[in-house]
Amino acid sequence: MQDALIINSRDLEFQLFEVLEAETLTRRARHADHSRETFNAALDTAHAVAAEKFATHNRLSDEHEPQFDGERVTLPTEVKEALDALRATGFLAAGKDYEWGGMQLPSVISFACLSLFKSANIATSSYAMLTTANANVIERFGSAVQKRKYLQALFEGRAFGTMALTEPQAGSSLSDLVTSATLNADGTYSIRGNKIFISGGDHELSENIVHLVLARIPGGPPGVKGISLFTVPKYHVNEDGSRGARNDVALAGLIHKMGWRGTTSTMLSFGEHGECIGELVGEPHQGLACMFHMMNEARIGVGLGAVMLGYRGYLASLDYARERPQGRRPDNKNPLDPQLPLIEHADVRRMLLAQKAYVEGAYALCLYAARLVDEQNTGESDTARAEAGLLLDLLTPVVKSWPSQWCLEANSLAIQIHGGYGYTREYPVEQFYRDNRLNMIHEGTHGIQAIDLLGRKVVMKQGAALKQLEREIERTLEAAHAHAPLQAHAEALSQAWRELTGTVEALLPTLAHESERALANANAFLEAFGHIVVAWTWLRQAIVASAALPKASNTADMDFYRGKLHACQWFFRWELPRVSLMLTTLRGLDDTTLSMAPQWF
Amino acid sequence: MQDALIINSRDLEFQLFEVLEAETLTRRARHADHSRETFNAALDTAHAVAAEKFATHNRLSDEHEPQFDGERVTLPTEVKEALDALRATGFLAAGKDYEWGGMQLPSVISFACLSLFKSANIATSSYAMLTTANANVIERFGSAVQKRKYLQALFEGRAFGTMALTEPQAGSSLSDLVTSATLNADGTYSIRGNKIFISGGDHELSENIVHLVLARIPGGPPGVKGISLFTVPKYHVNEDGSRGARNDVALAGLIHKMGWRGTTSTMLSFGEHGECIGELVGEPHQGLACMFHMMNEARIGVGLGAVMLGYRGYLASLDYARERPQGRRPDNKNPLDPQLPLIEHADVRRMLLAQKAYVEGAYALCLYAARLVDEQNTGESDTARAEAGLLLDLLTPVVKSWPSQWCLEANSLAIQIHGGYGYTREYPVEQFYRDNRLNMIHEGTHGIQAIDLLGRKVVMKQGAALKQLEREIERTLEAAHAHAPLQAHAEALSQAWRELTGTVEALLPTLAHESERALANANAFLEAFGHIVVAWTWLRQAIVASAALPKASNTADMDFYRGKLHACQWFFRWELPRVSLMLTTLRGLDDTTLSMAPQWF
Repeated sequence: MQDALIINSRDLEFQLFEVLEAETLTRRARHADHSRETFNAALDTAHAVAAEKFATHNRLSDEHEPQFDGERVTLPTEVKEALDALRATGFLAAGKDYEWGGMQLPSVISFACLSLFKSANIATSSYAMLTTANANVIERFGSAVQKRKYLQALFEGRAFGTMALTEPQAGSSLSDLVTSATLNADGTYSIRGNKIFISGGDHELSENIVHLVLARIPGGPPGVKGISLFTVPKYHVNEDGSRGARNDVALAGLIHKMGWRGTTSTMLSFGEHGECIGELVGEPHQGLACMFHMMNEARIGVGLGAVMLGYRGYLASLDYARERPQGRRPDNKNPLDPQLPLIEHADVRRMLLAQKAYVEGAYALCLYAARLVDEQNTGESDTARAEAGLLLDLLTPVVKSWPSQWCLEANSLAIQIHGGYGYTREYPVEQFYRDNRLNMIHEGTHGIQAIDLLGRKVVMKQGAALKQLEREIERTLEAAHAHAPLQAHAEALSQAWRELTGTVEALLPTLAHESERALANANAFLEAFGHIVVAWTWLRQAIVASAALPKASNTADMDFYRGKLHACQWFFRWELPRVSLMLTTLRGLDDTTLSMAPQWF
Repeated sequence: MQDALIINSRDLEFQLFEVLEAETLTRRARHADHSRETFNAALDTAHAVAAEKFATHNRLSDEHEPQFDGERVTLPTEVKEALDALRATGFLAAGKDYEWGGMQLPSVISFACLSLFKSANIATSSYAMLTTANANVIERFGSAVQKRKYLQALFEGRAFGTMALTEPQAGSSLSDLVTSATLNADGTYSIRGNKIFISGGDHELSENIVHLVLARIPGGPPGVKGISLFTVPKYHVNEDGSRGARNDVALAGLIHKMGWRGTTSTMLSFGEHGECIGELVGEPHQGLACMFHMMNEARIGVGLGAVMLGYRGYLASLDYARERPQGRRPDNKNPLDPQLPLIEHADVRRMLLAQKAYVEGAYALCLYAARLVDEQNTGESDTARAEAGLLLDLLTPVVKSWPSQWCLEANSLAIQIHGGYGYTREYPVEQFYRDNRLNMIHEGTHGIQAIDLLGRKVVMKQGAALKQLEREIERTLEAAHAHAPLQAHAEALSQAWRELTGTVEALLPTLAHESERALANANAFLEAFGHIVVAWTWLRQAIVASAALPKASNTADMDFYRGKLHACQWFFRWELPRVSLMLTTLRGLDDTTLSMAPQWF
């Protein structure tokens, strides 16, 4: 397994240490034992396990879907071996306190480690990601008893976690959940209902599975205000932490998907055949708030997964384009000349450059979000922490959706570069494309992210988050002043930003009084906003590259920085200009979709 | 099987008889026996067979890929049953002379019939499409003996045809083919070599398979000028037309693909185990010209297939959006109100409207191309026939590529509307998406279409084809004058067209002297050109709808015409404006991709 095919390690180093200055985090008390060396050691370990245990069965588990014999769900043995290796490295608790056996790594580093597992095998790594997200909710909202029963097991991977939100009749509309939770005399709850699309909902990969289930306590308010959160283990856990009897969580069926075939996707029934016992997490009827804590983290995780599928496809197609001879230059009609490698063709270079711009731009965005988590947790002042939290809230829908859309497009380009071979299952790129198509759907569809962004995030606290982002962008524009070749980009970004904020201003009255109309084109707003944010991440990268280039001491570094500057240029010339069109149509409150009557279709 | 799920029959009627005035073709001598009734009878038969025999096993043959036991390739029996039903209807020779047992249907009608089979099952219908394309080459370039041996069998479907061009080491670069054809004493040729990605290359669906193979006669010129075309049957054909001994065409392997799983995709070896005999078609070294005859037809067929996959996904998601209750309006926070059907949500309507605009616009384009084939064949004057031929040449790369790109996007939107369900194999839309991804690759990749368009088609004969298209567009703009609500669209189209021709003017000197540079961004030119052409097909449809609306006698028709006008408006407001951006960057001869050094990636 070639290193380069999971990640460009030089890019990872650049993003973490040159752009995000992750080393400065070692000055903070929580990470004081760490150093650039310990960070690198963690990254190297993750890389090795990802390459040797995860990447190696990515196709295998796509081809051998989970099987259910009526009693057990079985997966290829390689899946468990990989997760056992991951467990052994301690990455499930990478950012956790030493007292829980964690490593107290900063988020940005543990997130970068996670990115390598995702790149190597999105389906197998999802069991780990869900477990971490689940554990974080119990850590934050669970009782002391719940923590004792579940947390250590989750951190160690003895138990894996799930998020059991969606129901067949409700889909994205959490308001319409009907799963019930009835209080028992001993303080536990009896859970009854059905959930669908529960990833990791059943398997034999861990000793136990802890479901976090949204359900209604009878008598509570209707809608989302009456939803509570429960831990529902597959096996009860005894007081001493050992595994007890089976709880009545039953697998009602496995779902067969286009991609992510190595991740069991399940229909689960709770309490249908006996008694299903759950425990309330947090206060009654406050389930949604707890769930959003988990969901926001999961959304950033989805964005990162989308990036890594795109990244892996980019590297595969880059490798192919360098190796595969094919055709000659358009002005060379001599068939006796040898064929050139694909990368020599301008249109192939365009497809590589587009992929590079999408995946490295989106990677920068995701790692920046992880860096904001650090700032929110260990920032040096209350203000710094609050500002980071605001920015993270604003950017979460973009981090979730932009990579899901554009790194999928990158996967399509990776197929295209492979030509007919790319469409076959002999090459890996078709699987990345199938896998990536999920990301616009789960953890809140694209449409829901768009409404969240325009309807809530940009207007919350009188637009405070938007203003915070503006200050960050201004800081970047100022830094760009020192770099003459970046002036045009800086001006374009500044102009696009002004247009964006002008559009928000123009939409405010309609948002307040005719929200359906104002939100009808929210999708275009999400796209425009996303492109501006990614242009900004590119300008940040270009500033660092531009400063480093004259000082670079070897050809490889010079090539690398030039590539960064060039990809930035490509994004500014070929992608950013779209923004203005979308914003113009948005300001005009175009009602074409709203006024299309259903019977006209 | 609901009718509506294969095609919107009202739309088909509109396109054929209201927009393209297909009935006027019955005035021509060749079609004098036909009438609107016989056209409808053909369409109804195709619809019934497509719905009852083709659509019914579309998922089945996706799930049960062709199997090779070392001797025979087997497919689900439903595939053969469907093709037997197709054979029985005579559609394989729908447009052919009565003397061959054909129906002498105009191209536009037989193409519309074909569209229904493609919609129902792209993989099974491909055997028929390849056979027709193959027969057309033999009809046009074959000797009397070849016609006697093969043509009747192909028209009746006793033999199926293939196109065997691609070789593993050459891919898209036909110049680098190495398969050889050595002249024997009896005038036949011994063929030796390997071909890859040969669709329908082996199966038991027909008595025989006739491969059309590109190969080199030793001693001929290098490159494409030394390529000749041969018929190579799987079984020799005796003088009396009966099947003879096996020829040495061997299946070297089946290729496993992301989609189109019902179509065998093969690696074939010729003459590896004995003697493989072929017969020269046309003159030595003129194979490429013959092949392009077939290829151009195949390219239009690919475009139509892409449209129909998009169309089918659109209809599936429209049906789902009407049936599935989900959530409430953004300004309704009352969870006790019933959930609304998905179609009531603006963002879902946007996704439906975008699909409608893409698939109905592209369907209009493909049927227009088929109408040009009629004009080329039976047009009323030499001038009319020549002009149609020019236009068809110009539009072929667009007909091939635009649907492959945008109807794939439609398939993605169809998945999105289904949410999590759309990603599962329980619903049909994920298969359409997988199937459609091939269309940007086969019969000349997107990149090759772009170079063909900008490097050859727009400049050929001093831009005569472009001028011809300009006249057609001007005719449409003039017709739009009578419709006040279409004025803004007409002006936008006119403006976009001027910008396009201005861009071509600006690029001409560079095309002549620095073709690599001028063609570096050919992809953007193809996209801009395609959007303008599709906008034009929408304006043509809107003019007809606008004229018909006041006279419509029932609500269904009024709804239908309003839908057309609205989809046109959506395309002009949300899609056409992109064109200007692309053309501006093209005129600037942006060299970002060209100047990206391979080592900078």
